Amino acid sequence: MAASAPIPKTIYLGAFVHSVSLSELEICERGAIGVDEAGLIQFVERGVEDVEILKGKEGWGSAEIVSVEGDGWFFPGFVDTHTHAPQHPNTGLFGKTTLLSWLDTYTFPLEASLSSLPKAHTIYSNFISRTLSHGTTTCAYYATRHVPATNLLADLCLAKGQRALVGRVCMDSLSPEYYRDESVESAVRDSEASIQHIRTIDPSGAIVRPIVTPRFAPSCTAPCLAALGTLARDADAFVQTHVSENKSEIELVAKLFPDSESYTHVYATADLLGPKTILAHAVHLTDEEQELVKRTDAKISHCPASNTALTSGCAPVRRFLDAGLTVGLGTDVSGGFSPSILEECRQAIWTSRFRAMGTEGDKAKLSTEEVLYLATRGGAKVVGLEDRVGGFEVGKEFDAQMVKLGDVVGKPKEGTNGINGHGGFVYKGEEEGPVDVFGWESWDEKVQKWVYSGDDRNTVAVWVRGRLVHQTKRFQA
Amino acid sequence: MAASAPIPKTIYLGAFVHSVSLSELEICERGAIGVDEAGLIQFVERGVEDVEILKGKEGWGSAEIVSVEGDGWFFPGFVDTHTHAPQHPNTGLFGKTTLLSWLDTYTFPLEASLSSLPKAHTIYSNFISRTLSHGTTTCAYYATRHVPATNLLADLCLAKGQRALVGRVCMDSLSPEYYRDESVESAVRDSEASIQHIRTIDPSGAIVRPIVTPRFAPSCTAPCLAALGTLARDADAFVQTHVSENKSEIELVAKLFPDSESYTHVYATADLLGPKTILAHAVHLTDEEQELVKRTDAKISHCPASNTALTSGCAPVRRFLDAGLTVGLGTDVSGGFSPSILEECRQAIWTSRFRAMGTEGDKAKLSTEEVLYLATRGGAKVVGLEDRVGGFEVGKEFDAQMVKLGDVVGKPKEGTNGINGHGGFVYKGEEEGPVDVFGWESWDEKVQKWVYSGDDRNTVAVWVRGRLVHQTKRFQA
Repeated sequence: MAASAPIPKTIYLGAFVHSVSLSELEICERGAIGVDEAGLIQFVERGVEDVEILKGKEGWGSAEIVSVEGDGWFFPGFVDTHTHAPQHPNTGLFGKTTLLSWLDTYTFPLEASLSSLPKAHTIYSNFISRTLSHGTTTCAYYATRHVPATNLLADLCLAKGQRALVGRVCMDSLSPEYYRDESVESAVRDSEASIQHIRTIDPSGAIVRPIVTPRFAPSCTAPCLAALGTLARDADAFVQTHVSENKSEIELVAKLFPDSESYTHVYATADLLGPKTILAHAVHLTDEEQELVKRTDAKISHCPASNTALTSGCAPVRRFLDAGLTVGLGTDVSGGFSPSILEECRQAIWTSRFRAMGTEGDKAKLSTEEVLYLATRGGAKVVGLEDRVGGFEVGKEFDAQMVKLGDVVGKPKEGTNGINGHGGFVYKGEEEGPVDVFGWESWDEKVQKWVYSGDDRNTVAVWVRGRLVHQTKRFQA
Repeated sequence: MAASAPIPKTIYLGAFVHSVSLSELEICERGAIGVDEAGLIQFVERGVEDVEILKGKEGWGSAEIVSVEGDGWFFPGFVDTHTHAPQHPNTGLFGKTTLLSWLDTYTFPLEASLSSLPKAHTIYSNFISRTLSHGTTTCAYYATRHVPATNLLADLCLAKGQRALVGRVCMDSLSPEYYRDESVESAVRDSEASIQHIRTIDPSGAIVRPIVTPRFAPSCTAPCLAALGTLARDADAFVQTHVSENKSEIELVAKLFPDSESYTHVYATADLLGPKTILAHAVHLTDEEQELVKRTDAKISHCPASNTALTSGCAPVRRFLDAGLTVGLGTDVSGGFSPSILEECRQAIWTSRFRAMGTEGDKAKLSTEEVLYLATRGGAKVVGLEDRVGGFEVGKEFDAQMVKLGDVVGKPKEGTNGINGHGGFVYKGEEEGPVDVFGWESWDEKVQKWVYSGDDRNTVAVWVRGRLVHQTKRFQA
């Protein structure tokens, strides 16, 4: 399997870009990152003029060199803090539904069908490859309520070398008869079985870890939530769930849990709220709920594409950041319409602008630097990996993508695809992606062009822990 | 030149999709569209089982056949009712600026540099190829204030076969010293020169037409606007300008034109408002202004990507449609961050959802069908081509794109690009684009997937007036 193949000692040579704080990107034009056979970063050099000097470092003489030429750079792999792998075939399908009608119309029937393992294999293989192709090196996955398919998702992440949190979905209430846990006992037992499997295939949790996954308060009884709280504590596992996504959902929770002070308090009561808890959406948190999240050090997965597509609302991310909450980005496929965290960066920018158009004014606006931070270091904190991934420092593991923009416009290469009868003008977009470069852009402008116009064609190679897990034809072309 | 090469009589065979009304798409699974040597649609057949029967039609026995197989379909070419070709290199660059600071920081310096014809050639060639690659068969272009570069843009549109309205930008006020018309007289003279050139290279206006282009009220004096109103009337030409995009801009117009009842009335006073006028943005129109637009039958170009990127606001499109205004979509590069009308369809959906999250509720939401109408028939009405393009009917000209989604997931083809060491799983996104198809989708779902997840990789061929003007490797592969 890929994940067990040896990794050659490698020097990654050329420009690199990463967040150094919420508001600041470092752009190093001539860098060198040395990665050892365990995938650990052993040195990070700046202002590198001659690779031979680096190869003279003791023990690095025979290292492989992976260079990014010209307009490209290395960037940390993205962290997707919330997505639903089984919903991948429904990407783009939501019509005018909102959360609760969308679940019944699109989501539950598809998820239920993953009782078929061959179907699960097709969907999960494809989705992991897709998310890798968009530069996602770590992903917090909801699976379905089926143990075999959940275990298969973990197997496939390990085989393909993508860092993942994989959760069997618990739901013993208000779900269709054909798709729910039979009892609290079976819900806990099945979740335990999945945790057990994942810890067997990857005992150190280096690549794949289990995560306790109560779907959301409306689909779990109070005893089920409490039992899952106990399970998470006993297993020392992460927890993921949804909170306060949609106003009708919030009303429903208030009816189902009349004694609870708020939606967020439902989870606190069940001992499900803590530093290892990922709360997706959090669009409509009250001040008291926000305070509770802060106090328990729970983490927030901001899912703007989904929140827009399902008309859930615009989460107040500036307020969260000002309050010191930990925030990452989540694609939330298929409420979200794209498996790309780069698209999610854009959507985070747009929803912050919509808040700015309202009463909050310009301070609500997120900057390019801020969304890239959320997509990497912020996400790493959300999934508890901030010491391992999210940036390029000695001692971290090398989770990265190589970004290449298009070749400079007006310099056609031999062999590229021309357009019939157009006097030889070469259309390069098919191979080189959507970003046009004219040769006069600053480094900052190249990064901006990537963020606002780039796509998976610009992510030409992806590494997790030093292992190559995705490449396009332009990698080392 | 491509535009003068002969067109073979052709039958386009397979599924086609087009709008039949604002709220309704026709999806014809087995269609045949016969296009003659002039690019005119001579027949449209539905329920076609055997192409030989069609070839038995008198005069069609030797027609070429262009088939779209399996999951693909023909769709009308998109109409982009507002974009700025010279700003293309700035796509994705706007930071946190809003309209007026953005103009000074990014836009005016770049536009001014198109006094260089080689630079204009590089930028315009690339941009036309880009817009064609996204299926845009008709485009209303702002050029710059330079006559030679404006004429070059028209030449290139004609050579590449893209239907276009091309406008020399008039601006004699409040613009930088280095980039403005010297006088009203020179503004009119230069605009006339450009109109003259365009009508010389394409006397019938079949492909390229001139358009009178006062940049926007703040950059034109009242005498200049009045002279352009006279010019447009005398030349029987279309007019394009901006209106009510941003609140600071509206305040500026109120100061500059203190006797005018409103921003829109400034144009009415100059005789610039009529059925051949395209008003871009119209985000903050008052009821009185909307009534004036309706009464004069002026048209609206909705530019949601730009309005979001520059935090201008969300235009009330549902209100416009309810009032019976004519609306199309505009990419407004580089205020907008993409040259794709498909992306603009999505952005129109998102901004309508943001209006829905506010006081307007669900009725503000635009549907997939509605945005596709705006992108084709709506846009055709905006640019005065509703009798020629926008749908597939006998007598219309064949402006179309062939859409192909990915091959069904789980059926890898020989020769596709695998991922190293991943047990043979084939990542097909690079060649087949971002849309995954699993084989169980309905036709309606395939269209939804294209709209919400597709990109230029899914537009595998494009025709204008029956002439092939763009293709990717997957066309007829």
